[in-house]
Amino acid sequence: MGKLQSFTASLGFLVFLGLASSSIRSVEGGKILVIPVDGSHWLSMKILVEELSRKGHEVVVLVPEASFKIKDGDYITQTFQTSYSKAELEAIMEEMAEKILKFSESASVLEHFRLHMNLTDLKVKSCESLLYNEPLMKSLKERGFDVVLTDPFLPCGPIVADAFSLPVVYFLRGLTCMIDLEAAQCPLPPSYVPRLLSGNTDVMTFSQRFKNVAIVVLESFLCRLNYGRYGELASRYLQRETTYKQLLGHAAIWLLRYDYVHEYPRPLMPNIVTIGGINCAKGKPLSADLEEFVNGSGDHGFVVFTLGSMVSELPEAKAREFFEAFRQIPQRVLWRYTGVVPKDAPKNVKLMKWLPQNDLLAHPKAKAFITHGGTHGLYEGLCNGVPMVMIPLFGDQGDNVQRMVVRGVAESLNIFDITSEKLLGALRKVINDKSYKEKMMKLSAIHKDRPVEPLDLAVFWTEFVMRHKGAQHLRPAAHDLNWVQYHSLDVIGFLFLVLVTFICVMLKTCQFCFRRCCRSSNKKKKE
Amino acid sequence: MGKLQSFTASLGFLVFLGLASSSIRSVEGGKILVIPVDGSHWLSMKILVEELSRKGHEVVVLVPEASFKIKDGDYITQTFQTSYSKAELEAIMEEMAEKILKFSESASVLEHFRLHMNLTDLKVKSCESLLYNEPLMKSLKERGFDVVLTDPFLPCGPIVADAFSLPVVYFLRGLTCMIDLEAAQCPLPPSYVPRLLSGNTDVMTFSQRFKNVAIVVLESFLCRLNYGRYGELASRYLQRETTYKQLLGHAAIWLLRYDYVHEYPRPLMPNIVTIGGINCAKGKPLSADLEEFVNGSGDHGFVVFTLGSMVSELPEAKAREFFEAFRQIPQRVLWRYTGVVPKDAPKNVKLMKWLPQNDLLAHPKAKAFITHGGTHGLYEGLCNGVPMVMIPLFGDQGDNVQRMVVRGVAESLNIFDITSEKLLGALRKVINDKSYKEKMMKLSAIHKDRPVEPLDLAVFWTEFVMRHKGAQHLRPAAHDLNWVQYHSLDVIGFLFLVLVTFICVMLKTCQFCFRRCCRSSNKKKKE
Repeated sequence: MGKLQSFTASLGFLVFLGLASSSIRSVEGGKILVIPVDGSHWLSMKILVEELSRKGHEVVVLVPEASFKIKDGDYITQTFQTSYSKAELEAIMEEMAEKILKFSESASVLEHFRLHMNLTDLKVKSCESLLYNEPLMKSLKERGFDVVLTDPFLPCGPIVADAFSLPVVYFLRGLTCMIDLEAAQCPLPPSYVPRLLSGNTDVMTFSQRFKNVAIVVLESFLCRLNYGRYGELASRYLQRETTYKQLLGHAAIWLLRYDYVHEYPRPLMPNIVTIGGINCAKGKPLSADLEEFVNGSGDHGFVVFTLGSMVSELPEAKAREFFEAFRQIPQRVLWRYTGVVPKDAPKNVKLMKWLPQNDLLAHPKAKAFITHGGTHGLYEGLCNGVPMVMIPLFGDQGDNVQRMVVRGVAESLNIFDITSEKLLGALRKVINDKSYKEKMMKLSAIHKDRPVEPLDLAVFWTEFVMRHKGAQHLRPAAHDLNWVQYHSLDVIGFLFLVLVTFICVMLKTCQFCFRRCCRSSNKKKKE
Repeated sequence: MGKLQSFTASLGFLVFLGLASSSIRSVEGGKILVIPVDGSHWLSMKILVEELSRKGHEVVVLVPEASFKIKDGDYITQTFQTSYSKAELEAIMEEMAEKILKFSESASVLEHFRLHMNLTDLKVKSCESLLYNEPLMKSLKERGFDVVLTDPFLPCGPIVADAFSLPVVYFLRGLTCMIDLEAAQCPLPPSYVPRLLSGNTDVMTFSQRFKNVAIVVLESFLCRLNYGRYGELASRYLQRETTYKQLLGHAAIWLLRYDYVHEYPRPLMPNIVTIGGINCAKGKPLSADLEEFVNGSGDHGFVVFTLGSMVSELPEAKAREFFEAFRQIPQRVLWRYTGVVPKDAPKNVKLMKWLPQNDLLAHPKAKAFITHGGTHGLYEGLCNGVPMVMIPLFGDQGDNVQRMVVRGVAESLNIFDITSEKLLGALRKVINDKSYKEKMMKLSAIHKDRPVEPLDLAVFWTEFVMRHKGAQHLRPAAHDLNWVQYHSLDVIGFLFLVLVTFICVMLKTCQFCFRRCCRSSNKKKKE
């Protein structure tokens, strides 16, 4: 039996060895099917997609017709019809952005949840548009791709990879409920690995650890609502019962946008590759008019202000607080803003529809970065060593911000109760208190001190999966265990049973001996 | 309280940020103190040491006077007196080699244990010779090293690093009881991570998992004997209570000689860097006489046979079995052997005191490698894609061999009951059954397909630690938790208590209500 098990143990890997046979080191001109996620998710995946294309691979990017960020580039695009129009999508996104800014803190949990479920609906619909487009799916299958590169924030990629029996590389920042790490069999001890959105750091008091464990329990119910929908779609399409976690577990490689100058250290599996800072590009020179503007306040430098790709407007009253604060600082301010501008807007503020964010942050006169704490901006700030004033809006941004505040390189503000005084205080702190800049520069140096650039690493592992038709040798055997087996609960139960039986037998034996002794001494007494 | 905790969470890292200030990217000409382990351990560490020296660092290697492998090289050596002579050491090693070969399987557990404890005695003595050499320790401290590079198989390195308050890089294959991984806070679920010497693979039956868990429990007692001695030495020298595991927990970086074509995938911590195959060097051309010899059997090729640096002799009867087997194969054999040679030794066998093992394995006519399964030879075999006949002798060799057998690239034999027939059968199998060679070539291709060469990775991380005075950003907060906290047992206990209390209160309330109902209905009946 043992030998049989050992045999099956090696079977998966042996099959892999068999598969990997012919095409080792022969992926020049491989074929990559990219199933991206629209919006900010695309921004960093695009960097990898373009690099893979530059390396000579045939890269086909599936683009929903109603897309607002994915455009043509140095790759082949293949659009597909969606059951919603671009106008509808934009309306939904605008409504979301508006809601985010209008949420009162007390109402946010339920509202957030509803918003989240609406988004899930949209995601499932979008995937259905692709999956049930039979002519497209047929033509894609016939194209003979080597690998699927996708962001599992949407379920389409994982399902297509499974349907086409192709190895899959996931590119992501992380999924809610940490389902990505769980699917990869990553141990996540709740004693020092803070759950997403918990507000905890990696050092927790008893009550914080209690909260963390409670979130683990709660998530196991709540996240079923979300990922249950994905699992249902996958089961329906693939015509076999599966959960989304099981589906994700087939990943060959996870490219995680993590770095330990930002994230807390925790266990990782061998097929998880950290590529945090993949968007850390060298700053390009500014245009002449921008260069002139940022130099306008001399040594005081300037401040960069964006709230991400989704939020370019603010309610008028809120915007006024910002303008008021900016009026009182000696720095000039570049703000990505398309909302209402007050008549007496301060002269030191330049409003733009779009900012060359990284180039501005790379400028030696950049003194502070006001950001919502999305990972793209965050890593650009880290790369360029610019202290931040952070205003988290939704999703992982609260976690991102807290990690930077804990490291002493940022100040955090709440969008709901922000005032010009608070903003002014935070800005003056990060600009005038030298410790913010110093710590940021050191963090930046550590971040950029790496044996391989994240982009090269991402390219390497995608090509590795193409060369070897997967990365089966990195797949832990934990995937084949159920929850009870994984935690050795059956073994512990059995051990406990043996122990209890042993103690019972011992007690009974003692009792029996004791009685016999008593009886014989009683007999003697009677005699 | 939460804020205070968050503050302390970041404190360690902030202190690190403070320390790492001045010397970022300025380690050309850094100072490295190397405290190596003699014997085969030195062979691969030497590769890193020489490379660091070539990079322009001042590398000082501490060499015990009674050393038998560590010689002068492209580095500075600093010898220190030991309480035993070289002759005594050689006698002990010879006795060990002899005992290993004479052990009957039934006697081996106790004998192995005694041998292990003798070795522990020797290791502690060796470290005492260094630590209590006050003039040497004083002069070393004054030299102002940037980092300690050491193999924690001996406790000297970790203790010196702590005494000098220097960051430490560990270079190793793994320690008994997996204390290295435990010290690094690596989760090791016994359900799929086989314990050392267990004979288990990563896929286990219930009884194998039971054995694995039982070993975990047993090890926690047995290994205290060994590492208790190290902890006692460390506590005595550092004048504070500590265990060896706690001491090892201060590692900045762990350079582990692991690779997943050999090891089973399992969780790793961010400060563990895998450098398996660091000794995989390009084969150099053979000397004229060797080249002539290996070409002598034409397309049949040749077999390389060594049993490691410790065993160059065999009992006469055992050796005869080998000679008899070799007589019956068409291949020529190169054997590192210094024992008694029978008069009628076959002509196709060339006996040598020392073999250019890697160069021979890299030769296109190498057909098989008979090896004891030490990691050096194993990785040379893997690198060069040569199928193996493996004869494990002691230590981790049994595990190493099993991992190769499971992958279908080797056959295993037992030194205690080896016969010429068995050897012949195994040799013919790995040479004539093409599947061994094919699988080995694929495994080799996967092994060598890596983004950075293991040696470059080892150099990078050693220099990283020098540049940033450690790698505090990779240190998990788990180090500050006790066993109960780490496993959230206090939280689970509290949750359980709350649940029990809740159920009790509910039951009591129900009981109370029920009684009142009964009473009133009884009253009514009576009325």
